[in-house]
Order: sequence, then structure tokens, then C-alpha cells
Amino acid sequence: MEKRNATVAVIGAGDYIGTEIAKKFASEGFTVFAGRRNGDKLAPLLADVEEAGGTIFGRSLDARKEDEIAAFLNDADSHAPLEVTIFNVGANVNFPILETTDRVFRKVWEMACWAGFLAGRESARLMLPRRQGNIFFTGATASLRGGSGFAAFASAKFGLRAIAQSMARELGPQGIHVAHLVIDAGVDTAWVRERIRARGGSREARTLMDPDSIGEAYWQLHQQPRDAWTHELDVRPAGEPW
Amino acid sequence: MEKRNATVAVIGAGDYIGTEIAKKFASEGFTVFAGRRNGDKLAPLLADVEEAGGTIFGRSLDARKEDEIAAFLNDADSHAPLEVTIFNVGANVNFPILETTDRVFRKVWEMACWAGFLAGRESARLMLPRRQGNIFFTGATASLRGGSGFAAFASAKFGLRAIAQSMARELGPQGIHVAHLVIDAGVDTAWVRERIRARGGSREARTLMDPDSIGEAYWQLHQQPRDAWTHELDVRPAGEPW
Amino acid sequence: MEKRNATVAVIGAGDYIGTEIAKKFASEGFTVFAGRRNGDKLAPLLADVEEAGGTIFGRSLDARKEDEIAAFLNDADSHAPLEVTIFNVGANVNFPILETTDRVFRKVWEMACWAGFLAGRESARLMLPRRQGNIFFTGATASLRGGSGFAAFASAKFGLRAIAQSMARELGPQGIHVAHLVIDAGVDTAWVRERIRARGGSREARTLMDPDSIGEAYWQLHQQPRDAWTHELDVRPAGEPW
Amino acid sequence: MEKRNATVAVIGAGDYIGTEIAKKFASEGFTVFAGRRNGDKLAPLLADVEEAGGTIFGRSLDARKEDEIAAFLNDADSHAPLEVTIFNVGANVNFPILETTDRVFRKVWEMACWAGFLAGRESARLMLPRRQGNIFFTGATASLRGGSGFAAFASAKFGLRAIAQSMARELGPQGIHVAHLVIDAGVDTAWVRERIRARGGSREARTLMDPDSIGEAYWQLHQQPRDAWTHELDVRPAGEPW
Repeated sequence: MEKRNATVAVIGAGDYIGTEIAKKFASEGFTVFAGRRNGDKLAPLLADVEEAGGTIFGRSLDARKEDEIAAFLNDADSHAPLEVTIFNVGANVNFPILETTDRVFRKVWEMACWAGFLAGRESARLMLPRRQGNIFFTGATASLRGGSGFAAFASAKFGLRAIAQSMARELGPQGIHVAHLVIDAGVDTAWVRERIRARGGSREARTLMDPDSIGEAYWQLHQQPRDAWTHELDVRPAGEPW
Repeated sequence: MEKRNATVAVIGAGDYIGTEIAKKFASEGFTVFAGRRNGDKLAPLLADVEEAGGTIFGRSLDARKEDEIAAFLNDADSHAPLEVTIFNVGANVNFPILETTDRVFRKVWEMACWAGFLAGRESARLMLPRRQGNIFFTGATASLRGGSGFAAFASAKFGLRAIAQSMARELGPQGIHVAHLVIDAGVDTAWVRERIRARGGSREARTLMDPDSIGEAYWQLHQQPRDAWTHELDVRPAGEPW
Repeated sequence: MEKRNATVAVIGAGDYIGTEIAKKFASEGFTVFAGRRNGDKLAPLLADVEEAGGTIFGRSLDARKEDEIAAFLNDADSHAPLEVTIFNVGANVNFPILETTDRVFRKVWEMACWAGFLAGRESARLMLPRRQGNIFFTGATASLRGGSGFAAFASAKFGLRAIAQSMARELGPQGIHVAHLVIDAGVDTAWVRERIRARGGSREARTLMDPDSIGEAYWQLHQQPRDAWTHELDVRPAGEPW
Repeated sequence: MEKRNATVAVIGAGDYIGTEIAKKFASEGFTVFAGRRNGDKLAPLLADVEEAGGTIFGRSLDARKEDEIAAFLNDADSHAPLEVTIFNVGANVNFPILETTDRVFRKVWEMACWAGFLAGRESARLMLPRRQGNIFFTGATASLRGGSGFAAFASAKFGLRAIAQSMARELGPQGIHVAHLVIDAGVDTAWVRERIRARGGSREARTLMDPDSIGEAYWQLHQQPRDAWTHELDVRPAGEPW
């Protein structure tokens, strides 16, 4: 593996998607800064990447705190130029509207939208002087459609998509590639995958994505040349109804 | 004017749109509960409605506070059954992403999205036992498209639209008509209208909406029978480019 | 009923929707020109309208023929100024892609899209010199979403929607109100309604629209003042999942 | 270059985009079947590909004729399994609605929509028994938005997009990857590029895409694994306003 003088910041490296993105970019020579709420849980990811010869730093990070986000990104950027930020914090919940408490609504928004705004803005602050960089936001079906019981989640995801669009239109001409990925898969954790397989759920298993494929999708976006950028990338398994 | 045993709550009765909606529903015999941050400024609206023989109550209301929203709506509902809630709080701002402060982003969201969630949920709580009612949210072009400089405003407006969609899909089958209006007009205050006219801006003036027309659009939605509801209504002047 | 010096042309007056639109506008004093492939089948509609004191002319009309469309609209306009054209020709079919024959694909397009183009263009030709008029196109869920088996129908309906958008953007500033209605109801013929009721399909029946409600929706659009036009109006029953 | 036992059919290989796609797939070892109205004009493309060691066949092809499309694709498939079909026929025109003749409207549809239906259906017929294959349709901004003067072009492009969506939903679960690319660039021919450069149009030139980048975008789609397919890919240069 040839090391690059570049870092990728993965904010929300706690789940299936974030972990795989981190591994993919590490395998391509990037230094990875991985942040999640409880940094201790990053140990397996750190071990995997280091075993494969990659460079990675794990951090406990509350992405809803401006100072923590800024410090995390500055730290990454001082190690080597921050070339890619991937915002991947999720908060999928479903409640009838009358049972959607103030606390839930606000927390989902802070995690899935507000934290994305902070991550995007602080990344842009570091990238704009160099007039290059990539800021990718992870979306979901709820980014495009508000469904019954999804007032909190869809509201946050719609809001994140608006941030991505607004930033893309402002920053694209200044050399920053801002993209929004709509990951449309029913299940996306290794744990759930095992559970479905265990109970023989063949149709459900058919509509799961392989870890490698997720990492590859983000990597493809990063590989796009400046004259052929994609802003919104939907990704789903062949068998997924949509 | 024949009085009805029904109230309409207008949350965000401070601007052009909210004022006209209040007048229209008052003229149709509804008791109006009008709320805005500084209730003193409602005096001209109250005077107009009362002079025309209508019934209206004005309240100072911080729509971002759950207890104030709940009290306002309960107050309306205890006067006569709450038949219509119109959420109309705006917060249009434009800043480059690096100049969009935490405070601005959060405040715009609290006014234009969070307050809408509170208003929608608390209205549903009152309406669901009767299995009827109307909850209308005011949107804008930024509800559909994130433009350069609009990260804060578009994010809040996208988020509000997601709430409207989610509530419509959950509550429609239970008899509650939830709708989202996309008011696409470059200018919508009487004050601005006068300014444009004063400086002879004929093209701009052509693309302004008349007060009566705004009130009429909300009224048309309310008039729709249960078997022919519109969820999203775009409204713009003939000359408005879109 | 007070008669107006104005005509409405209903192209595709053969089904439930077209018939109800014709009755509504007739009841408001418009002279109606109703066209359908086999004009003989218009007899019940003509009888209903005339019995109610309205004025209506029925014509056999192949809407896919430019000369027939032009003659029909000119005929209407020479009776009294053509104020409204409603294009309502449907052609809902569902076939797997391999069984979608050339003949079916082309015929569906000619009926649901090409005929709409002819109707729109020839109406604009008559309305533009007066700088006023209304051109309304009937759409469906398939106007917004291509589903399995709907290559032919959705392609035609998407195409019709593009015509409506393009015409609205060109003609709106010239005083012509062009709108597209998305009628999202599972069933829309009186015949099917009876069948469902007969077999006790309560859920299905709940999601049917009443004839009057359909006519009312088109009428509401026509009533909109020039400074508050809607371009796309979705309409569905309260119980319809979407 | 390692040759593959696979063919790619490029329908509409006449312009900038089609030519570059053909070169890219040839360079990856595919046998290319390139079709355009006047096959003689394929000579430079054939020479380029062959000089680079690739395998290519050029054909005169009227893509609006079912028998010609079927023969072209069968010919490709009998050479080696048809793995990819790329439909790339364009027909961008702009006329005021009153000047959009029947002939123009019908011809644009036949080229940009009807021919796409034929290409898609006949490709599916060959690919389905193997339960694998890729069918990619080239779209444009007019696929998503009908603009003033674009009734003919947008109608055809909307219609093509509906075909792509309908086929994707039907054929995805059967192993066929159907995608729609929204190529959003102001200018896309080598000829125009030279003209802009000649007159010093720096902003315009900044928003042109490089030939290689176009080929790469289609190639990336083809590279996607079955569990992470994209259906709609927007592609535009960094400086392009949207």
C-alpha cells in the first residue's frame, strides 16, 4: 500500500457503513480519522486497519458539539491535508406523531442534521483555502420521502439533504465536491445480517449490501474528476423494491 | 356573516401571509386565534377583523416553546373546536456557509421547523379524537431546493416539509387533512410591495401576490372534501419565473 | 344559472373524470364542448347537462389527429371565447416490458401524450391573442413514478407532464394558466365503484372519489386569481396510501 | 489489453458522449457494436479503437426501427454475450410552443424516447435468460424539468426516464442493472468546445466535460456490484450552475 499525504475524516464510524468506508480509504493509503460517540468501540476497526498496514486514529467524538467537531477536523488536517470528510451519523427512529417526544425529535435532529451542518461547515473552512476537497453526506430513503411515523427521522434527513445541496451549489465552483448518498437498503448492520441469515430470511438477505460494496460507492465518488461530479448517488441492492 | 362553532389557529400571524389568512377565515365565520412573538403588534389585525364583525383573539406566543404552543392551541380549542391550524412562521436568511453561525442555524431551525413540529403534533392531539381537522404548513421554494447561501433556511424548510408528509401519511386515513403550501413569490410583505412600486419596479410588482389571493389559497384547501384532498399546493403569480 | 360568454373544451369526456368536469363547468354557465372517440356515447352526458339547463355540444373526436383537434377547438372558440381546455385522455395499461408491443407503446403515447401536445398547442394558439385562458392536463401517479409494468403508461404520462411544465413556464407570463393535476385514486369509474360496493370492498370504496369532488378540483384551479396560480395539484381521498 | 467475451452496444455513437463511451469500453476489452444513423461517419471512431488494439464493429442504424434495433443487438449478442447496452440518441431542440410542429414533436420523441424503448426492450430480451446485463440510458437536465421552449425535448426525455424507472423496478430483481444518467453540461460536443475556446469563453469552457470523464462515468456504473447499484446518476462539471 502506497501511503498518501492526505486524511479522510469519518464522522459516525460506529456502524456498518462508517466502518467499511474507513477501511476502504485506509486501504487506498489515506490516513483515517475515525470518530464516534464512544471511541473505545473503535478498537476492532483500528486493529483491522493497522493489521492491514493502514494508518488510523480513533477518537471519542460528540458530533453535536461545535468545538469537538472543529478540534477533530483540525487534528486530522494537521496530520495531513484533509481531503475527504464523510458524515455518517444515523438516528433512525419511528414513532406515531403523538408519541414523538420533544426530546426524541430534537435529539434525532441534532445527530442527523445539526452535526452534519457542523461537520460540513468546518470541513469547508479547512478545504476552501486549497480549493479542493470532498464532503460526502450519508442519506437514506427518508431523505426523499416522509413516511408514517418518520416525522423526526425524515425531518432530520430532509434537512441534511438541503445542507448538502446548498453547500454543493455554493462550493462546487470553488473546487469542493459535495455529495449526498441515498443508501436504500433495508438492513445495514453485520449484526442484523447474521440474524436474518440465522432465521433463513432469504428475501431479506438478498437485499442486504456487502460491506465492500458500500466502501466502494464512496470511493467511486471520490475518484470522479472535477469535470464530472455526481451530487446525489442512490445505491441499493438488485432485489430491493423501491 | 354567519358565525361557526369552530376556531382556526394561525401561528405566525406577524407577516403578510399570516395576517391575510386570519382575515379570510374570520370573514368566513371562524373564531381566529392569532399568535406571534410580540402580541402587541397584532393590534391592527384585531381591529380590522373586529371592525368587519369577526371574532379574533391575539396572543403573544413563542412558538418554539412546547408549553406555549400547547396552551395556545388548548385555549383555542376550549373556545370552540379547533378545526384548522396554520403554521406560518418564517425565517428567511442567506449567508455563505462559513458565515452561517451556530446561533443562526439553530434559531432558523427552531422557528421554521421545530415550532412546526410542535404545532402539528399538538394540533393532532386535539383533532384526532374527533377524527377531523386541517393542519396546513407554509413552505417556500427553499422547501424544494437548497440554493447557495441557504443551508440554514432550506434545511429548516426541507425539514418542515418532511414533517408535513409524514403527518399526512399517518393522519390522512384518520380524517386529518395535512397540507404543505409552496408559496413561490419573490416578495410577500406590504412594506416591500410599496417600496418596489415606489421605485417603479414593474416586473417585480407583477410578481407579487395580492393579500386576498393568499387567503383564498388556504381557504380553497380547507374547502376540499375528504375524498379529494391536496397535500402539496404550489402557488405563484403568473409572471414569476420558476 | 347565469350563462357566460365562454366555452370550456373537455377532450376525453368519456370517463368518469371528464364527464364530471363537463357537468361542473356547465353548471357554472359555461358552454361545454365535449369530445370523445365515439361521440354517440356522449348522449347521457348531453341529456344530463341539458336537463339541468346547461349548454353542451358533443363531438366525435380522435384527439390524435391535429386537424380534428384544431377543428374542435376552433368550433368551440367560434361559439364563444375558449376560456378553458381540459385534456383528459387516459390509457392506463400494464404489461411486462417484453410483452409491451410496439403497437401498445405507440398507441398509449399517442393518446396520453401526443394528443395532449396537440390540444395544448392549439388551445394556446387561440388564447394567446387574448392573453388569457386555462389549459389543464390530467395526470396520475404514473406521471411521477415509473413502476414495474408501466413503461408505456408512465412514459406517456411523464411526457405529458413535461409538456405542461414547459408550456406553463413559457405561457404563464403571457397570461395563460397551465396546470397539471395528479389524480391519485385507485379507481375512478362509476362502473368500478359499483362493482367494489357490490362485493363489499369497504377499504377500496373508501379510497374512491366522489364525482362532484373531481369537478370541484378543476373548478378551484380555474377560480385562482392570476397572482396565485397553482401549477401542479395532487388530489387523493383521505384513505388512499401514497 | 485483455479481451473479454462480452459486447457493449452503443446506440447513438454519433456524438461526443457516445464516442467516448465506446472508446472506454473498448479499452477495457469489450467488443463494441457502435450504431448511428449514418454508419460512414463512424470511420474515425473505428480507426481510433482499432489503432489502440480494441475490437469494434460499426453499423448504420435507424434506432427508430424495431427490426433494425433487434438485428443490431442480436448481431452483437451472437458475437459475444451482450453485457451492456447504452442508449444515447439525442435530439435537443428549442421552439416556442406555437412553432413546435407536429413533425418536430414526433421526430424528437421517436429519436429520444421511442428508440430508447425499443433498445431497452430488445436488450432485456437477450439479457433476461442469463439474468445479468446492464442497460444505461443517457438523460439531461430536460429529463427532470420542462423549460420554456422545451415541450418536445423535455417530453421525450421525461418519457425516456419513465422507461428507465419502470424497467429498473421490473428487471432489477431479475439481475439486470438499468440506470439513467443525467448529464448536465451546457456543451457536449468537441466542435462546440473548440468554438468556445477559440472565442475565449473561459466560464463556458470551465463547464465543459472532458471526453475521458464521460466514458469513466458510464464505466463506474458498470463496475458497481449487484448489491450496490445506482439507478440515477447526475454528472456535471464543478463550475456548472444547477
